[in-house]
Amino acid sequence: MSTLEMIEAAAERLEGHVRETPILTSPFLDEIAGRRVLVKPECLQHTGSFKFRGAWSAISAMDPRARENGVIAYSSGNHAQGVAYAATRHGIASVIVMPSDAPQLKIDNTRSLGAEVVLYDRASESREDIGEALAQKRGLTLIRPYDEPLVIAGQGTTGLEIARQAQTLGVTQADVLICCGGGGLSAGIALALEGHAPGLRPRTCEPEGFDDMKRSLASGQVQRNAATSGNICDAILTPQPGEITFPIINRLCGLGLSVSEDEALRAMALAFLRLKIVLEPGGAVSLASALFRKDEIEGGAVIVVASGGNVDPAVFAKALTHLS
Amino acid sequence: MSTLEMIEAAAERLEGHVRETPILTSPFLDEIAGRRVLVKPECLQHTGSFKFRGAWSAISAMDPRARENGVIAYSSGNHAQGVAYAATRHGIASVIVMPSDAPQLKIDNTRSLGAEVVLYDRASESREDIGEALAQKRGLTLIRPYDEPLVIAGQGTTGLEIARQAQTLGVTQADVLICCGGGGLSAGIALALEGHAPGLRPRTCEPEGFDDMKRSLASGQVQRNAATSGNICDAILTPQPGEITFPIINRLCGLGLSVSEDEALRAMALAFLRLKIVLEPGGAVSLASALFRKDEIEGGAVIVVASGGNVDPAVFAKALTHLS
Repeated sequence: MSTLEMIEAAAERLEGHVRETPILTSPFLDEIAGRRVLVKPECLQHTGSFKFRGAWSAISAMDPRARENGVIAYSSGNHAQGVAYAATRHGIASVIVMPSDAPQLKIDNTRSLGAEVVLYDRASESREDIGEALAQKRGLTLIRPYDEPLVIAGQGTTGLEIARQAQTLGVTQADVLICCGGGGLSAGIALALEGHAPGLRPRTCEPEGFDDMKRSLASGQVQRNAATSGNICDAILTPQPGEITFPIINRLCGLGLSVSEDEALRAMALAFLRLKIVLEPGGAVSLASALFRKDEIEGGAVIVVASGGNVDPAVFAKALTHLS
Repeated sequence: MSTLEMIEAAAERLEGHVRETPILTSPFLDEIAGRRVLVKPECLQHTGSFKFRGAWSAISAMDPRARENGVIAYSSGNHAQGVAYAATRHGIASVIVMPSDAPQLKIDNTRSLGAEVVLYDRASESREDIGEALAQKRGLTLIRPYDEPLVIAGQGTTGLEIARQAQTLGVTQADVLICCGGGGLSAGIALALEGHAPGLRPRTCEPEGFDDMKRSLASGQVQRNAATSGNICDAILTPQPGEITFPIINRLCGLGLSVSEDEALRAMALAFLRLKIVLEPGGAVSLASALFRKDEIEGGAVIVVASGGNVDPAVFAKALTHLS
């Protein structure tokens, strides 16, 4: 099965379970960006981010007997919620291994979505050791956040929708800006567009100072970030591009883009004001790139994948002060 | 042409110009409400509220020669923005008569959407006199906010979408909660559901103390509000039910519901947290009713029309403090 066929097969499994997110627009954003801005709000997806697509794709493709034993994931963020809810809706157990200093709200949410949360001490314990012991003991299957073909295929269904929606709107040539951590969403969308909308060029968007993918694309070699914390865009801070995702992104994507924390917060504020959607900082770097990097973008229209909206109220309130 | 045929004709004129808003859900909201909650987020409509539907319906149905002269509306809020943008996209002029003490942001937005804004002094001038003089002089056509059959037909297209979407989701019996000011949205949806989904029962939602429609429905006679200001739900504070809308609503809707300001703010905060959408207070009273009036609602599912999201950042930040 080709990678494109894997994405199309994932789309069939997702049908009726995953939300087809709309395309949102605003003349005010068009004016700032200097071109038409088409926003794909994956914050409106189940559990508030695109991660539910990949989780559903992986779980729905499992052998039913293995699936019965349940799944396990390491994550304190959007992937955790996606896996927990996809597992619950499949009627199976999920175990999420999270650091004990994760925000209580995220722990509570993940539990409320049906997962068993196992906490570990970052300083003294290895989540991999804990997870592997649990997986072996209970026969759980690990769902990786991005270096997993079935997860990439699930995220790629976003690209199938974009290809259809762009065509309906008469957009056949445009950059497609994608928030990028490990690269699962970017790789999936890139593969889908290669097959269904070759005039749409995928491009990764990251926070400045944590732009491992941008530097890796520029050099053609995998580059690492100096740190994986210390930026407001927590959802997309990863040590380096994924092993599976990078070759795909390197082959199919244009140059990477990066924006400042301040620009991410301003994009969140403008999404609030003009689109009436809630974005988290890591889900807004694509919109920020469209609005504040217009000289690095080509064409009369730009497509923006706004990838998630799981943001603390205090951070969101701070973003709203960036409207003046 | 029957009223239902008018709505169906409006839907044809709106096709491709108005956004079909999705249905959003969250297991967290279901738990609070004690039943499935299906949210229709009209805040995601062009200009941030359902008002664009009615404006487009009215303008698109005009005689082309009259339309060339332009349109006029009295409004400081969502109707103003809806009319301005619908007119601009038709390539015609619009004049919006607004009080000189309207928030600068609303004046600026309305102008940016292409309207000519004419300010008047509430204390010494009559907007009707000013509007009528302008209309006569320039041949402008007045677009009323709710007591206008073509506007009601446009808002009713929301009901056609709800009927289709509810059927897809397997919901054939449910209360449909609708934020209600003058009643244009409620009347339009009620007529659409009467024809296309008779098991769905429309019900109006208002702020406590400004519940003229609820009291009118209870008594069967039009009741007035004591005031039209002094509540955070500014978008839906009207003196009394409309002359055209009330008989329709009285014939087709169940009992009215009302919620406190505090409940509207809590619903906004929960919509932020669980659905990732931005609601204004007047656009959240329907969700507040679903969440906090569950004993007054019947059935295993409830449909919530979240009608708008044009809220000042300061008010939204205040709502976010209601999450604890």
